[in-house]
Amino acid sequence: MKSMSVRDFQLDTACPDTRLLVEHVTSKWGVLVLLTLDDQTMRWSELKRAIVGVSEKMLIQTLQTLEADGLVRRDAHPVVPPHVEYSLTNDGREAAALLAPLVFWAQQHVSATPA
Amino acid sequence: MKSMSVRDFQLDTACPDTRLLVEHVTSKWGVLVLLTLDDQTMRWSELKRAIVGVSEKMLIQTLQTLEADGLVRRDAHPVVPPHVEYSLTNDGREAAALLAPLVFWAQQHVSATPA
Repeated sequence: MKSMSVRDFQLDTACPDTRLLVEHVTSKWGVLVLLTLDDQTMRWSELKRAIVGVSEKMLIQTLQTLEADGLVRRDAHPVVPPHVEYSLTNDGREAAALLAPLVFWAQQHVSATPA
Repeated sequence: MKSMSVRDFQLDTACPDTRLLVEHVTSKWGVLVLLTLDDQTMRWSELKRAIVGVSEKMLIQTLQTLEADGLVRRDAHPVVPPHVEYSLTNDGREAAALLAPLVFWAQQHVSATPA
């Protein structure tokens, strides 16, 4: 597969809305939430455990931001105690599929670079 | 082209070094520096003009971080007045090629979403 160069895309890197969405998707915790939720539905406590190092505050904030962007779906089941599940929307899965090669590249790059 | 799912990668999303490199590459200004320098060498003042809204401080800091990561090359020509040029290394071009589809996706997503 030949990778595309930046010139193959019509990118408007000055567009504020595009910048903001890129910031949400590529934020430290945004990346990890999207990759962790790919292909699975998780409860809040499972997500919290799976994403090593995230604080409650940052996880709540990141989930709310990604939900507002239409990338994460929040399902609250009306039971006692409350049962809330998170999953990716179709758009969220698209974002995760684009992020994964980037994180994989970083992983390879880090292990190839002398500390 | 079939896109790969997250599960096709062996991702260790807990690795601090990988997280840090992903943060640098996907930082607000990091994304824009990498995409702007793709395929071209630019002087500092040209970069500053091309990246709408970046402050001197953030541009300097971003270039230093990406240079330390081995993604940006800084060439200082010993002339008067000083002539400093920035370009991407091979690794930097790899990162830019992975970022471009993500930014393109964000652009499409933003224009498809009602404000």
